[in-house]
Amino acid sequence: MIQSTCLERLIEALRCMPGIGKKSAQRIAYHLLERNRDGARKLAAALTEAMDRIGHCQNCRTFSETEICKLCSSDKRDKALLCIVESPADVHAIEEAGYNGIYFVLMGHLSPLDGIGPDDLGLDRLSTVLDQGGVREVILATNLTVEGEATAHYISQMVRARNLRATRIAHGIPMGGELEYAGTSTISHALAGRREI
Amino acid sequence: MIQSTCLERLIEALRCMPGIGKKSAQRIAYHLLERNRDGARKLAAALTEAMDRIGHCQNCRTFSETEICKLCSSDKRDKALLCIVESPADVHAIEEAGYNGIYFVLMGHLSPLDGIGPDDLGLDRLSTVLDQGGVREVILATNLTVEGEATAHYISQMVRARNLRATRIAHGIPMGGELEYAGTSTISHALAGRREI
Repeated sequence: MIQSTCLERLIEALRCMPGIGKKSAQRIAYHLLERNRDGARKLAAALTEAMDRIGHCQNCRTFSETEICKLCSSDKRDKALLCIVESPADVHAIEEAGYNGIYFVLMGHLSPLDGIGPDDLGLDRLSTVLDQGGVREVILATNLTVEGEATAHYISQMVRARNLRATRIAHGIPMGGELEYAGTSTISHALAGRREI
Repeated sequence: MIQSTCLERLIEALRCMPGIGKKSAQRIAYHLLERNRDGARKLAAALTEAMDRIGHCQNCRTFSETEICKLCSSDKRDKALLCIVESPADVHAIEEAGYNGIYFVLMGHLSPLDGIGPDDLGLDRLSTVLDQGGVREVILATNLTVEGEATAHYISQMVRARNLRATRIAHGIPMGGELEYAGTSTISHALAGRREI
């Protein structure tokens, strides 16, 4: 026993973060104790504050400190365009690309094997949003994984049943990508989705 | 502005950890909010507890919750063998290798350019320890960097002035290491330090 139990508890607690194993946790703990105790205290306060105050927007389900998030309550967004994503991190990524519509965040994807069905993704809430009218096009921006594709397919049927437009984000070669290293299915999607230039 | 300010503060605060940039901080924040709020609360508590309760051992300067650390107060350690290291993380590494003496932790290394002199490393305290008697050999286990070597050299003079034995940990090829990839200076040290087999 060379570590004080307090230090052991800190190292163990640091491992709740994704990508932080035992060695990294140790390094972080020693670093904070030696060089940045103020930063560590601020982090503790920020963690507590965030966990206590951040809930979900009642409208689009993304993270929000208020009942309705800033995006849903903004009057500068195009409410006719609804983008469906799997997580709040995706909202962030799409915002950075300059999108100006509104969102619906599933907080996951359909995964029957893990017991995640339509209700867990708030699709009842999505039905209400679509039935309220105002939405013209639903952009399905779930991940291009098997589960993401299945989820997009399921939701597209909900959307079309209401005579609304459902679109899927393009599949193809990423910017800066080289054909040689793109997978076969990526290339076949890129060919199928080719456009006039 | 798509993030609540609370979330932004959390992402910023997470960056106090070494090796955590903006992207990782975002990923960690979203992960904790989505999947591990309990873990995040425990981490906040562990951080606060550790920063408040962990100080330095008055004897060997390593991290300790008590005035004198467990290693210094243990009666099972060989008090004639004193190992000098740069940081508490080094104590941990050397403990794992099965060492059974005591330590003195410099909490840094001599670095005149950064204004770090002998007093900042507690060498006055080390003098007291050496003068108290009981120590027979001082193992210099500072890092094998320019600063670590200079620090070891400086301390070895303090030790020899008291007619005690000063030793330096061996320089050579690491276990599992291949000669082809070892640096020239490592190989020349390994040759100079060769032993009969």
